[in-house]
Amino acid sequence: MKFLKVDSLEQAREKMLSSLQDVFTKTEQVSLQESAGRCLAEPVYCPEMVPDFRRSTVDGYAVIARDTQGAGESIPVFLDIVEEVAIGHPAVHTLKSGECAYVPTGGMLPDGADGMVMVEYTELFDEKSVAIYSAVSPGNAVVQIGEDARKGQLLLDQGTRLDAKSIGVLASIGKEQVEVFKPWRLMVISTGDELVLPGEEKTACEVYDINTSAICTLAREHGMEVVETVTLKDEEELLEQALRRSLETCDIVVISGGSSQGKKDMTARLIDKIAEPGVYTHGLALKPGKPTIIGTDDASRTLLIGLPGHPVAAMMVFELLVIWMQKRMFHEKDKLCIPAILESNIPGAPGRATCQMVKLIPSGSGYAARPVFGKSGLMSTLTQADGYVLTEVNQEGLRSGEHVFVHLF
Amino acid sequence: MKFLKVDSLEQAREKMLSSLQDVFTKTEQVSLQESAGRCLAEPVYCPEMVPDFRRSTVDGYAVIARDTQGAGESIPVFLDIVEEVAIGHPAVHTLKSGECAYVPTGGMLPDGADGMVMVEYTELFDEKSVAIYSAVSPGNAVVQIGEDARKGQLLLDQGTRLDAKSIGVLASIGKEQVEVFKPWRLMVISTGDELVLPGEEKTACEVYDINTSAICTLAREHGMEVVETVTLKDEEELLEQALRRSLETCDIVVISGGSSQGKKDMTARLIDKIAEPGVYTHGLALKPGKPTIIGTDDASRTLLIGLPGHPVAAMMVFELLVIWMQKRMFHEKDKLCIPAILESNIPGAPGRATCQMVKLIPSGSGYAARPVFGKSGLMSTLTQADGYVLTEVNQEGLRSGEHVFVHLF
Repeated sequence: MKFLKVDSLEQAREKMLSSLQDVFTKTEQVSLQESAGRCLAEPVYCPEMVPDFRRSTVDGYAVIARDTQGAGESIPVFLDIVEEVAIGHPAVHTLKSGECAYVPTGGMLPDGADGMVMVEYTELFDEKSVAIYSAVSPGNAVVQIGEDARKGQLLLDQGTRLDAKSIGVLASIGKEQVEVFKPWRLMVISTGDELVLPGEEKTACEVYDINTSAICTLAREHGMEVVETVTLKDEEELLEQALRRSLETCDIVVISGGSSQGKKDMTARLIDKIAEPGVYTHGLALKPGKPTIIGTDDASRTLLIGLPGHPVAAMMVFELLVIWMQKRMFHEKDKLCIPAILESNIPGAPGRATCQMVKLIPSGSGYAARPVFGKSGLMSTLTQADGYVLTEVNQEGLRSGEHVFVHLF
Repeated sequence: MKFLKVDSLEQAREKMLSSLQDVFTKTEQVSLQESAGRCLAEPVYCPEMVPDFRRSTVDGYAVIARDTQGAGESIPVFLDIVEEVAIGHPAVHTLKSGECAYVPTGGMLPDGADGMVMVEYTELFDEKSVAIYSAVSPGNAVVQIGEDARKGQLLLDQGTRLDAKSIGVLASIGKEQVEVFKPWRLMVISTGDELVLPGEEKTACEVYDINTSAICTLAREHGMEVVETVTLKDEEELLEQALRRSLETCDIVVISGGSSQGKKDMTARLIDKIAEPGVYTHGLALKPGKPTIIGTDDASRTLLIGLPGHPVAAMMVFELLVIWMQKRMFHEKDKLCIPAILESNIPGAPGRATCQMVKLIPSGSGYAARPVFGKSGLMSTLTQADGYVLTEVNQEGLRSGEHVFVHLF
């Protein structure tokens, strides 16, 4: 096998990051409604004080707190009701000592008032006055101007993946249009004389095409747009046609063929033939993931990746290269990992980083991480695993009992 | 305030689970391509052995392992090549002692062969024979029949939320149609004279409608179908019309109004007016979430929920009631929580469970959970928090230094 330009995971990532940056950081405007799952391309600052008026958090009476001093269950203080504030409408009076105003939850406190007394601690005396049975401090049950967010304050950083929480924050400042990163356009090619599409008739020695479904789902889960999927027989001409088409329609094309040397050579040769400068990483010092090929075509601004043929390895490499690159390009924060204690040793691979699938098992006040060993062609390892642990290139494996962080996958 | 039927979170959940089960567990067939994010309605068993032939994991020669005994770097064993197996095609020969066959990665071993020698450890001698420089054991570099999955084995359980991994598993057995639970049809109503939609002009004392965007996003993130969203002024007639419409088009309607008593009374009164048997939970012993109302209309098979008006509380209650119920009805596994050590005390609320937002901070070999305190109307608590900790009804709060499990949110 000729792996002329074998790179470590870090080297390959560096090269990917430094090429085609322009392609992978395009932005567009979308409406708030369509923004779920998209990634913010710009930081969002608070355009005004939130709230921009003093808001009551209870149903009750806005008072001058000093007026309620000494009030208690048996000794009420009597105040004149000068206003009934309606929600969504400004209060019009300015309270003077001895006065109060009814304010519902969410309503505006009148000028002069500095605290709220809950309606439960009051009793209407007549139409114009109320007995207050509780002393309150200034600020009681009031959200102050700017207490939720101050004008100019950073609310959401660039790279925020928009979810219910962050969309709620955008709604709270009335933002209806948001600048997000454009989805990467992806083409997924699977090649193999042995491949049969799910739903089709399969004869002995043939296998179902797993990679197309798995890689497409993974890509869409991370907001990418799958422009085309192609399942091909192992014919150089067919693959060349598909690759040439990808240069015109896509930002990234991933080719997953079998892992036989002939197929890998063909993929690398074709990338070098149609793309310029072509292949820059030929082999990855990663277990699994060795037969990975990475190249670019500068003219059409396309990234071309040959994934390992084994489904599990193909998914891992897609996660560790493409999805990792998207996180960096979009300035996304890393997802939280789950801390766990390793249940058995993970052997290191000399000169290669290792991506080891693990199952998480509740144990004491946390989790134990149990390595799921299996040949990398086996899908069953995936159904058992909750995530993976990544070891460094020159790490001699990990020992049972070590603390690890598990990336959910 | 009249909370006539205040329930604990557990009581409310029990009541919800025991009503309308038929509505919430309908199923449908979708294609594999459309199945991402859906929830399996039936367990999936392996229909045949995977693989259903003995598969090589390397490029090389299929041999009878016994024939290679004694072979080494300087002492080759010579074998006759009787066949070159093509990928996707059956091997036709039966190996006898002294014979071998070339098999590419993923190809089928011929009968008689019991191990593979990697091509790197061989040298072609002439067209019909090869020198083997390595002794191999039986089973070397071979995936046995059924090694990935045996016929009849459970591959995916009912309730599996279909992601790239599980879709890969379905593809591996050629399953093109899957039975999944039907998405729940949801209507989201927000009421309030003070509400303005994002993008619209806002005057003093008005606030943007946060709940509609936040609840819709949360629902869609969990696979629900939002049939209609309505933002209304506080007029009983408008709300009644919307609610009556929801009985015809939806499985669930959530109404989030302000938290003032008048509005809550109106919601409860209207549910009792149009639905039969109507409200069964009037108040939830949960902080935040007290002003929650739950009822059903048996004739139209609709669940009606009045959420708290505060956005954070509304989202939490939606998560703890509706999304929780979907997990139970669909037999979904609980998501993994993140173990952490509490950084400061969380005060308990007498007679109420507490849902406390926390931020996770890397600390040593794990995380510290820092409570994010803030009035429940404040969106800013959401941008800071990574998830929540749930305390039991009769727990006297949690102490700094305690181990907790954080639900990501």
